[in-house]
Amino acid sequence: MTGFDLSVGAARTALAPLGLDLADDEALHRHAVAVWCQLVEPGDSAAGRVVASLGPVEALARLVAGAPFAELTAREDSDARKRWMPRLSARAVSDTLRIAAARGVQLVTRHDPVWPQQLDDLGPHAPMCLWVRGDTAALARLDPSVAIVGARAASGYGDLVARELAAELAGHGIPIVSGGAYGIDGAAHRAALSADGLTVALLAGGAERAYPAGHTQLIDHIAATGVVASEVPCGSAPTKWRFLQRNRMIAALTTATVVVEAGWRSGSLNTAGHAADLGRALGAVPGPITSPGSAGTHRLIREYGGAACVTSADDVRELLGLSASWPAGGPGPRGDDAVRADPGVRTAPAARSVPAAGAGAAARTDDTTRVRDALSTRVGRDADDVARRAGMAVDEVRALLGLLRLEGSVLIGADGWRLPSAHR
Amino acid sequence: MTGFDLSVGAARTALAPLGLDLADDEALHRHAVAVWCQLVEPGDSAAGRVVASLGPVEALARLVAGAPFAELTAREDSDARKRWMPRLSARAVSDTLRIAAARGVQLVTRHDPVWPQQLDDLGPHAPMCLWVRGDTAALARLDPSVAIVGARAASGYGDLVARELAAELAGHGIPIVSGGAYGIDGAAHRAALSADGLTVALLAGGAERAYPAGHTQLIDHIAATGVVASEVPCGSAPTKWRFLQRNRMIAALTTATVVVEAGWRSGSLNTAGHAADLGRALGAVPGPITSPGSAGTHRLIREYGGAACVTSADDVRELLGLSASWPAGGPGPRGDDAVRADPGVRTAPAARSVPAAGAGAAARTDDTTRVRDALSTRVGRDADDVARRAGMAVDEVRALLGLLRLEGSVLIGADGWRLPSAHR
Repeated sequence: MTGFDLSVGAARTALAPLGLDLADDEALHRHAVAVWCQLVEPGDSAAGRVVASLGPVEALARLVAGAPFAELTAREDSDARKRWMPRLSARAVSDTLRIAAARGVQLVTRHDPVWPQQLDDLGPHAPMCLWVRGDTAALARLDPSVAIVGARAASGYGDLVARELAAELAGHGIPIVSGGAYGIDGAAHRAALSADGLTVALLAGGAERAYPAGHTQLIDHIAATGVVASEVPCGSAPTKWRFLQRNRMIAALTTATVVVEAGWRSGSLNTAGHAADLGRALGAVPGPITSPGSAGTHRLIREYGGAACVTSADDVRELLGLSASWPAGGPGPRGDDAVRADPGVRTAPAARSVPAAGAGAAARTDDTTRVRDALSTRVGRDADDVARRAGMAVDEVRALLGLLRLEGSVLIGADGWRLPSAHR
Repeated sequence: MTGFDLSVGAARTALAPLGLDLADDEALHRHAVAVWCQLVEPGDSAAGRVVASLGPVEALARLVAGAPFAELTAREDSDARKRWMPRLSARAVSDTLRIAAARGVQLVTRHDPVWPQQLDDLGPHAPMCLWVRGDTAALARLDPSVAIVGARAASGYGDLVARELAAELAGHGIPIVSGGAYGIDGAAHRAALSADGLTVALLAGGAERAYPAGHTQLIDHIAATGVVASEVPCGSAPTKWRFLQRNRMIAALTTATVVVEAGWRSGSLNTAGHAADLGRALGAVPGPITSPGSAGTHRLIREYGGAACVTSADDVRELLGLSASWPAGGPGPRGDDAVRADPGVRTAPAARSVPAAGAGAAARTDDTTRVRDALSTRVGRDADDVARRAGMAVDEVRALLGLLRLEGSVLIGADGWRLPSAHR
């Protein structure tokens, strides 16, 4: 197999059973990307390396033909195929494309001129593509932009601050990116919309359905004037793993991340950790030390190399490297001290380490998270089914299920593996 | 005069007209210090250098005899004498000592074993002595100690936080130092007393009288179990200059300064600036960004090299270099990472610059402040009187009065110089 060579013609032949649109090279390319989205879970770096090196068409053809990937070690190659092959299904791809077409979800690949190139800072973990509802051209206008994120259970104070920051920034031409969730995210999106600004919701599940369902109207509203996007194909459920990976994309897509309110172990600290890892500016809004909702933001300010203490929209502009009057004087050059309002101001030092609740912890717990995401409390599933849903190799999944069973965190019954009822 | 040489005998002769207690060398030394206190305003570095070099007795004898000071340039020497000589009055010293004796105010000099040596970090600006009501021995137990300071117009939140921090720290053996003012200062003192802890009030005026008068009972209570101290002699009014210099002493006396609540231009930022200048640990308590009372603390966290974001008594212990359980495990060695509760925690970087409202600004405006302090809205004063009250040379005072008159910030009338009425 090492001598495998693939012309585009041979690729078409190899891919024909997948039912891809072979009308032209462009269509073939796009549909190959769609297939890759289906095969991998977000952040799969083996897929990222293979597709970056070979392009999606040849990489897919080699996969289908069983030809090895020079980009991977033999072990990686073998593991990757075990993860990917169980998900290779012409039916799944056509379902995804059918839903996307029906719901107006467009596929944007890195070959598109509107592709937000800052996502490529994620390297092999970058998304294969984005599934987008709304104005795809707006994706090219997110530099600068700011992520405003925080707790779902926001306090009145957090809600007020998120609205004020988002309205002031969006109203002056700075796009607001968030996760579409209840609490801080929703407050930021709504205020940006009210200010007639651009706002982008990045979802952890398929872009065709609102999550949470209670935000259906808000997310439709965002799609009508801005962008609703996801890296997972239509029909995908938002799992815990996908939330964590969606957070990394919020951090990568934006110039700065501002956490408005967060508990001590809030998920938004995960987004903050990704922003710090990526060298993006990071800010956190202080609040009363008597409020649990500010414990996480104070933690970000105090620890981990120091998030900037954000108290106003001007502080956020400064974090973005813009002068306080932006855009009246035009965007200031990043890192140009001359445009700062106050030359004595300390800027956030480059973060040196990652929150415990951040990417490091995510990396350690990722396989367990993905296996648990693939299980249900209601129905039992066999290991093959769990592996396919998790995007993992079935032998890895079996090993993990065995460990989790010893811990009591998964159960095995006549109908297969399941989660215990949610009383823990 | 350059050949002037002074034996102790000659000093006694020279000083006899001042009515000093010449009973023994110790008494002579202490009374000479008391005279120096009378001659200089706080922070007079020429006096600091002369007294450090010659001792208070010989320095005073040289001054009285008109002998030049080798420690000063000819210009400094001339300027200093113009400041000091108009205040040389046997009557003033005896008045001070009489009030002190009557009100139980004790003189503590740097020769006393209880002298808090950390004050010597102020170099030539260090106080000559302390006038103390209460337990002088407690002065030797202020390492570690923490200054808890902040706005007079404290919010309910600031008051609560000051009380909780002070009670928790004082109740565990960490002395609380503050300025005896309304608001945060008073809350910190009261909570320390309630917790049966040691608390120290440093006053800007004479230690024999409470300032503000509304805190007479509180300050008496502090003196009964702790310390009330001032570097200015009994009978001295608290002027703006003396407040600024008192703030430097709060910073120098303590291991860390924590600002609980402060407006954007609060005087407690001056204390913070001194703490940073002295390399002392500096912390600030965050609060709602919607509260003007937290604008100054957020400013300290964001700017000027970064005050630590303090959210709990444990954060303060960490700032002091103590483990969270101190004193149960004994005081932790300063700067020893092993005793920190969380090895990932970032400590406040050494401050590199000073708040605009801090020591730098104070240095620029000091002479103006002192001249204005020496004026009244009610009665006119001639330039000599103003110079004596300000502790400045009369020609300097004349020049400044001329400038201030052009600005309209002082007035001249038939009875001399005065301040305009307080409607500005």
